[in-house]
Amino acid sequence: MQIYANPRHAAHDGRQEMFRGKLVPCHEVPARLEHVLAELGRRPLGEIQAPPPVARALLEAVHAPRYLRFLETAWDEWVALDPANAALDALPSVWPVRGFRADVEPDNFAARLGLYSFDAGTPLTAGTWAAAEAGAACAAAAATSVTGGARAALALTRPPGHHAGHDFFGGYCFVNNAAVAAQALRDGGARRVAVLDVDYHHGNGTQSLFYERADVLTVSIHGDPRTEYPFYLGHADETGAGHGLGCNLNLPLPAGTDFAGWRQAFDAALARIAAFAPDALVVALGVDTYEGDPISRFRLASADYLTVGAAIAGAGLPTVFTLEGGYAVAAMGVNVVNVLEGFETAAR
Amino acid sequence: MQIYANPRHAAHDGRQEMFRGKLVPCHEVPARLEHVLAELGRRPLGEIQAPPPVARALLEAVHAPRYLRFLETAWDEWVALDPANAALDALPSVWPVRGFRADVEPDNFAARLGLYSFDAGTPLTAGTWAAAEAGAACAAAAATSVTGGARAALALTRPPGHHAGHDFFGGYCFVNNAAVAAQALRDGGARRVAVLDVDYHHGNGTQSLFYERADVLTVSIHGDPRTEYPFYLGHADETGAGHGLGCNLNLPLPAGTDFAGWRQAFDAALARIAAFAPDALVVALGVDTYEGDPISRFRLASADYLTVGAAIAGAGLPTVFTLEGGYAVAAMGVNVVNVLEGFETAAR
Ligand SMILES: [Zn+2]
Ligand SMILES: [Zn+2]
Repeated sequence: MQIYANPRHAAHDGRQEMFRGKLVPCHEVPARLEHVLAELGRRPLGEIQAPPPVARALLEAVHAPRYLRFLETAWDEWVALDPANAALDALPSVWPVRGFRADVEPDNFAARLGLYSFDAGTPLTAGTWAAAEAGAACAAAAATSVTGGARAALALTRPPGHHAGHDFFGGYCFVNNAAVAAQALRDGGARRVAVLDVDYHHGNGTQSLFYERADVLTVSIHGDPRTEYPFYLGHADETGAGHGLGCNLNLPLPAGTDFAGWRQAFDAALARIAAFAPDALVVALGVDTYEGDPISRFRLASADYLTVGAAIAGAGLPTVFTLEGGYAVAAMGVNVVNVLEGFETAAR
Repeated sequence: MQIYANPRHAAHDGRQEMFRGKLVPCHEVPARLEHVLAELGRRPLGEIQAPPPVARALLEAVHAPRYLRFLETAWDEWVALDPANAALDALPSVWPVRGFRADVEPDNFAARLGLYSFDAGTPLTAGTWAAAEAGAACAAAAATSVTGGARAALALTRPPGHHAGHDFFGGYCFVNNAAVAAQALRDGGARRVAVLDVDYHHGNGTQSLFYERADVLTVSIHGDPRTEYPFYLGHADETGAGHGLGCNLNLPLPAGTDFAGWRQAFDAALARIAAFAPDALVVALGVDTYEGDPISRFRLASADYLTVGAAIAGAGLPTVFTLEGGYAVAAMGVNVVNVLEGFETAAR
């Protein structure tokens, strides 16, 4: 398996997030990725490389240019407002809801921060853009590798991406790496691409990005949004719109679901993907389905991830993995590498 | 002038707000109203009474029933989640932006808090609903007084209201008192009602509530939303829609505008109101246009408010005043009572 590791990931290192109404230390930390790298040191699965730079045109095929420009310059603007801001991360505190306008980009920094976000749990830091852009480069490189004939490739990156939409960040995500990979696969010649999101949280950004497209099937297995983040999307009745009608499948499950229950949804997801007959697969690989995850409520055990990986290999598709959530930091390495090892063993 | 003072206002006493990315002490404090009462003690302008209860049907003519139910029960839910929450105010940390759904009300409390809000500067506290409901009662009672023949009446209340929309709070506002007054005046027989918002900040809630109605003209003079809160509404090209096309006038002015500049917009606002020929007027009376306001940037002096009040009286309309913003706390009394005294002197 080709592995593209984000050399800039640690540049994104948030200090505090708003979590259930309080400021708390960030859950999405650099150690998450370091644990995966350490486990890959113990159980090597392929060469680990840095990616080449990503083409801006590919990013702009996924995200609004004005949003990307904002991300790119936001930290400098934040510190220019007040040098003391360098000691704080930027968190949004006002946002446009129903009836407000998004067509006029305000001059005010706080207003743009809120315009382009959907939570106050995703601090924008000095190194956010560097990390996010290099992460998208990992996703693009992984897609290129698969386009070139590799059976599978991994974008080993953080911050994660699947919550980021066309012009908004949130859920610890800024640039949607899974969407970048899917678009890159399409650009590389795949006629149809499926995205399978196994993170505990609904892949709202990925769903939204492809919601009206027939060339990308999006499937997500996740905690029921009535009780679980991101709350405002991810219901079973969201099946796509326009040309994309029928090309989105949500499989929300109640908090507390164990592997037996999860596996049923997973099998349904794989069946839907097989029916779509894609040329390639993107797996948005979150392991916050783990029973030990501090902010999630499924009950998968570490050994279950070997089974998950093997079943993904069973789809028989060229596959790009992107790293998404997982907040039981010390268990991240074992859980992620179990998926990948399960895949490699079954794909052989 | 009939004055209905909110007997429960001090029950809403937020501890902290998110302001430009940091948690800071609240600007919207009980002392604001106490200073107005003290100045009315020095310069009496009429009997000060408590209002009778407000009819739920009137509130539901302005706000979504599910939103009112949320406000009513939110504090108890917040504390039920964790008894330690009693020591904290509830601030939203996730919200639905473009592409998210608002039709499904989540079960999760934090998700509902975010669904029904547009900033993290408006803490929901133990006494928020009691204060907001009694404030709406003041607005309704003031409207009833004017319907009954009084030349003018004042809803002396906080929290303010003009930023609150059909189903969202924000900008220190929960229930839109000016909109409640306007609706009550309509229900009382006024064929057309004008709302004149002189607060420093755009009256986005009031505009949105009446945007498609021809029976209520909304006019707002305010800091340009490109740089000033609430940022996402209040531009000059917002003129109403549907039946309400032509029934909204925004007069955004640059930060730094002095009374001479403000007065030009004010005269244009009064001319537009005269042309609408309403039966009654609601004035959303914020005095954060004051040169000493800590969060606003116009340069009106205290004496200017006497001129403002006199000019409002010059419109010759039965008038309900609702108290909105103003954060130079010690100057609140003089500035607000100057408007009222200017009005009363000219109306005699
Ligand atoms: Zn997740
Ligand atoms: Zn104001």
